[in-house]
Amino acid sequence: MNLTRLFGPETVAVVGASKTEGKIGYEAMANAVEFDGRVYPVNPSAEGSVLGEEFVASVTEVDEPVDLALLCVPGPVVPDVLEECGEAGVGGAVIYAGGFAEAGEEGEELQERIVDIAAEGDVALLGPNTSGFVVPRTNLLASFAGGVEQLPAGNVAIVAQSGGVAHQLAFQALREGNGISAMVGLGNRANVGFEEAIEYFDGDAATDAVVLHVEGTDDGRSLLETCRAAETPVTAYKVGQSDVGEFAESHTGALTGDHDLYTAGFAQYGVPTVDSTSALLDAGVALANSPVPAGANVGVVTAQAGPGIIIADRLQRGGATLPELGADTQERVEGILPGITFAGNPVDTGRPMPEFGDVVEAVAADDAVDVVLVYELFEEALGYPVETLDGLAETVDKPVLFATEGPPGAMDDELAALREAGVPTFTSPERAAEATALLARYAELGDAAADQEVSADV
Amino acid sequence: MNLTRLFGPETVAVVGASKTEGKIGYEAMANAVEFDGRVYPVNPSAEGSVLGEEFVASVTEVDEPVDLALLCVPGPVVPDVLEECGEAGVGGAVIYAGGFAEAGEEGEELQERIVDIAAEGDVALLGPNTSGFVVPRTNLLASFAGGVEQLPAGNVAIVAQSGGVAHQLAFQALREGNGISAMVGLGNRANVGFEEAIEYFDGDAATDAVVLHVEGTDDGRSLLETCRAAETPVTAYKVGQSDVGEFAESHTGALTGDHDLYTAGFAQYGVPTVDSTSALLDAGVALANSPVPAGANVGVVTAQAGPGIIIADRLQRGGATLPELGADTQERVEGILPGITFAGNPVDTGRPMPEFGDVVEAVAADDAVDVVLVYELFEEALGYPVETLDGLAETVDKPVLFATEGPPGAMDDELAALREAGVPTFTSPERAAEATALLARYAELGDAAADQEVSADV
Repeated sequence: MNLTRLFGPETVAVVGASKTEGKIGYEAMANAVEFDGRVYPVNPSAEGSVLGEEFVASVTEVDEPVDLALLCVPGPVVPDVLEECGEAGVGGAVIYAGGFAEAGEEGEELQERIVDIAAEGDVALLGPNTSGFVVPRTNLLASFAGGVEQLPAGNVAIVAQSGGVAHQLAFQALREGNGISAMVGLGNRANVGFEEAIEYFDGDAATDAVVLHVEGTDDGRSLLETCRAAETPVTAYKVGQSDVGEFAESHTGALTGDHDLYTAGFAQYGVPTVDSTSALLDAGVALANSPVPAGANVGVVTAQAGPGIIIADRLQRGGATLPELGADTQERVEGILPGITFAGNPVDTGRPMPEFGDVVEAVAADDAVDVVLVYELFEEALGYPVETLDGLAETVDKPVLFATEGPPGAMDDELAALREAGVPTFTSPERAAEATALLARYAELGDAAADQEVSADV
Repeated sequence: MNLTRLFGPETVAVVGASKTEGKIGYEAMANAVEFDGRVYPVNPSAEGSVLGEEFVASVTEVDEPVDLALLCVPGPVVPDVLEECGEAGVGGAVIYAGGFAEAGEEGEELQERIVDIAAEGDVALLGPNTSGFVVPRTNLLASFAGGVEQLPAGNVAIVAQSGGVAHQLAFQALREGNGISAMVGLGNRANVGFEEAIEYFDGDAATDAVVLHVEGTDDGRSLLETCRAAETPVTAYKVGQSDVGEFAESHTGALTGDHDLYTAGFAQYGVPTVDSTSALLDAGVALANSPVPAGANVGVVTAQAGPGIIIADRLQRGGATLPELGADTQERVEGILPGITFAGNPVDTGRPMPEFGDVVEAVAADDAVDVVLVYELFEEALGYPVETLDGLAETVDKPVLFATEGPPGAMDDELAALREAGVPTFTSPERAAEATALLARYAELGDAAADQEVSADV
């Protein structure tokens, strides 16, 4: 299934568009009009215009092909509207309404009906039972939620089973200064599931990593195979380690399934998993902005020992190793900072200092190091070594990640400068260490999965 | 040891105060002058004044009793300065310099010397090898770090073994809108250790919870007994689950010790533990602003199913239970929202709505529920049920916690209003669930510890 017209449309129709503020048909329209392309409000019983756009009576009456239709109509009306979408040659439709597979037998039948109609009309369906999706790059706000116009463009695609979680992830990314290439809430996955979304974003030039929120699917193997086939890095957060089956089933009509089986399966197929929404975002930022490391050896440079100990602890627990640095590196570091507090790994400079960036460079150049993680509390008089870190990952062809904390204000500007330079940034030692350990695991899982693939071919 | 003059002084002397920006003696002075009481810069080789205060040649020459001295002098000079402090009747001293017990044999001897001098002069020592402490309520900025003047006053005391971690925690609290009663970096704990600090903040009227960052101590039992004796809730983050011994020892001269022994010991003494700096802050906010729950039964109300599933999962994994709600409550909820999405536990309203607060009230009133956790994505047209939540915890005598996410701006103001009303707020479903589960564990550990104490007395 080609999702180009769904996620990358040129024309959008809002079916059930309304002039009444607070109604979903108004909120969806208010978001849709931000789109860089054409937007048509569709409503057979409305006259005049809404938000500057003339109402059209039906998608079949729009005088150019409609790529994407946003269906702001109640569940029972969806089949008829979808029939019209098929007739009009609409490429994709978002179905916000609930009352489908998540709502018992009648809902299941309704969902089967719309799947059949969509198959006949060749319409890709996002939902039903979703709050939609957003592509900030084209100002395509196919969600009825307020505030999505603030989401900045970036290179991580969020694909969540739940629309609520999709929005939660996107707004957290916004609050932490990270952009997204897209945010998608799959909902009931009538005919667009994880596989279709992953394939689409794997082919999307603006996406450098795909992060998945998974409650459960009927065909785990298919999901895993799609992840392995993707060239773009994929990471996943599988919810439901404890028994939340009944409530989860009432949500998107999916059982949460066996958590251990999923995580083992993901690992086997080269997909590192995480255990929280924050860790999922962090993993996305790290994967999207880093070269693939050659191994799991992390060199840590810290300006404060306490956070450095937390980081070393967390890295080791996350599957990374802290190798001894080469004699050359130790010499180089001692040359930069005679009498340095601790020149092992972590390298601890004791406090931020003008030479801090030089120490980072020395550690990054060490052959024993596959990934570099830097920690320093912000000191306004010194700032961060932005110039040193800008491009360092490319030069040494290793991920370089940066974590810090400090008073807001001057720090925020410097952190933004680092992010603009493509450096993944974090404001918690644990979150930084976990994202770094994820890169280490990604390197090791990738090697293991590749070996396996080769032996399977033989 | 009485720490009132250390943490609650009326007069402060900055020994080694300097006119040279960038020097620690200047930075410490620049922070110290914010203090609500008198501040004296002390330096035998300086003339005139700094930041509007006249230099004094020695603490012995200040013409009123000095409660607190901040020693901005190199390690080898500390003994002589401390002698003078003893002569002058100084009550407490912060020693920023390193080069003591964390730095090998010579350093250990130096530390023994200052402990002896302090004992003779009856001086409480914070440090050495610390970046100090801050009490926002009195603008007492006994740290040389920039930006600490921004830390807002609150009711959680941060006591960290590492000065760096203390600052990291305090700035994170600031960024997340939470205030602190104090932030203390213990450093080498020459004669003020965890026990002394916990006892002081247990008696501090402005402190409603004490959170500990622990690398390791020589006398674990003494720490545990102090925690149990405290009336104020205490929670702890023990670092070092993996082997970080060598690096940790080079830091504050302490072995990290056995992680499992510590966490088991804390549990036995009624202290719930957490596993990250963020979780430590969250636990502090939850403990400081909540009544002690009667048990581990959590009632969850969510406006979105996806985050609700994450929360249910995390609560159960954290040791909490989700009881079935009483028939009365289910009826009451169905009465408020006929045809509600899911009226079990979690109660899922499907989306935010004007009746959301009423549903929360109904669940909070349920006898099966000991703790209430609320989740809803922010919707600007509705806002949060601030009026309903304000005072609800007191009315039902149960903790009521609130988690959300959404676009910054209007949301931030409403969140601040909730915090002002004493409601612990979170912007991650996992963090909210973990803080809630911590309260549940606190209730159960407290009961267990009390039982044990009784049987020990018998």
